[in-house]
Amino acid sequence: MSPAIPADVASLTPAQARALFRDGLVMPTAGWVRGFAQANLLIVDRSLAFDVLLFAQRNPKSCPVLGVLDAGETSGPLLADGDIRTDVPRYTVYEDGVLVAEPTDISPWWHQGLVTFIVGCSFTFEAALQDAGVPIANLDQGVNVPMYRTTIRSEPAGSLSGPMVVSMRPIPPSQVADAVRITSRYPAVHGAPVHVGDPAQLGIADLSTPDFGDPVTIRDGDVPVFWACGVTPQAAVMESRPRLAIGHAPGHMLITDARDRDYQVP
Amino acid sequence: MSPAIPADVASLTPAQARALFRDGLVMPTAGWVRGFAQANLLIVDRSLAFDVLLFAQRNPKSCPVLGVLDAGETSGPLLADGDIRTDVPRYTVYEDGVLVAEPTDISPWWHQGLVTFIVGCSFTFEAALQDAGVPIANLDQGVNVPMYRTTIRSEPAGSLSGPMVVSMRPIPPSQVADAVRITSRYPAVHGAPVHVGDPAQLGIADLSTPDFGDPVTIRDGDVPVFWACGVTPQAAVMESRPRLAIGHAPGHMLITDARDRDYQVP
Repeated sequence: MSPAIPADVASLTPAQARALFRDGLVMPTAGWVRGFAQANLLIVDRSLAFDVLLFAQRNPKSCPVLGVLDAGETSGPLLADGDIRTDVPRYTVYEDGVLVAEPTDISPWWHQGLVTFIVGCSFTFEAALQDAGVPIANLDQGVNVPMYRTTIRSEPAGSLSGPMVVSMRPIPPSQVADAVRITSRYPAVHGAPVHVGDPAQLGIADLSTPDFGDPVTIRDGDVPVFWACGVTPQAAVMESRPRLAIGHAPGHMLITDARDRDYQVP
Repeated sequence: MSPAIPADVASLTPAQARALFRDGLVMPTAGWVRGFAQANLLIVDRSLAFDVLLFAQRNPKSCPVLGVLDAGETSGPLLADGDIRTDVPRYTVYEDGVLVAEPTDISPWWHQGLVTFIVGCSFTFEAALQDAGVPIANLDQGVNVPMYRTTIRSEPAGSLSGPMVVSMRPIPPSQVADAVRITSRYPAVHGAPVHVGDPAQLGIADLSTPDFGDPVTIRDGDVPVFWACGVTPQAAVMESRPRLAIGHAPGHMLITDARDRDYQVP
């Protein structure tokens, strides 16, 4: 039997939240543990690990690495006393580039050669934008952020290459500058937008049919603002069709012990 | 015969400067090609490359990677039409952790398995500090910046570990805040100081006897301010005693095509 959902998930500690997921609770993590950074997950064999880290170095906006658990490690400073095999509510398991399972526990796939990449997530800058009064359509409309493949290519690294994937948030014209200013202070979680305005220049024909996530209603006059997205490295890894790769299920993030504010510069 | 030294080295283009060094000119690069980023160099076999990149991810203040040339590559976006084997004025070659040569051309050591790490250098933020009127003692006194081993350990990564090495600049008390504010905007070149004040807390007994570089005269009342230093990863690699590792000779940097201002955030 899975644990009951606590009344106030925003006030839990990261360790309490991870324990609930470890014990079997399954749900998206938006709104959980306010003030702490949530993260994307990417787990690959050590033979692919240098290419992933090099891809991250060359594409820091789409793949901001917050931490790495070296081969076989299941815990680390971002999840003290945690277990990366069980502490995310739901995972995605890919074999030869094909999704084969969406388990809540990856222990059956685990081996000592697996390296875990913990990658920054836009939840961190969305909180900062909301604090500054910038409306976030996907949060206000209770849906996943819309994400799109673009015609911009990522910088390749070894065996990895693919398109840049972006997330889009419609912003009122009077607040576009604020949105740029605020997110530029969070380079560790995608940073400043990569594009403001005309979606066609990114090769996006129709904002209402995102490649990942959900469409959002765009108010008249709002400007579509695009940020590099953490799906980018996952897509590049999947395209290289490794024997095994593991990620988190969309919206089901790793809740880390790092505070959002730790990633603010200057 | 090596080329003559141009009258105004600050006004050269990066490509012109690299060509002079390629043709045999040997001298430190301080003051060269104003506005463009100079960089530390670290070249290792691909078998050690993941550890170096992981060390950099875990120690971003001491090892800010600006670019990586993958195994066997001798050129890349940071040195268009350049050649990493010849374009640095002087190199250091280590075999089994021991300095064996300080050549001006590393072609005799080159092989297709070598991976090149181009690492940010404090020259970039020193220029920004000077622009803001903050005096830089080592520049004013015409010497190399003093550097010290500390009792702070770097985060280990695979086979690599070692002490954090810091550089020190004495700053007038009225300008310490400016020095922090300005350098914090350059996370890609060591960023904000790691320590302001009391050297004893870093395990530094005597500022007048640095472990690397030169001592500087400290004016009465000036506060010693310490930044993480790019010698840190080099020291960690040397301690691991790889069969071959190559760096740049102190003060003899790679002059890149990236502008200093490219690294400013937000």
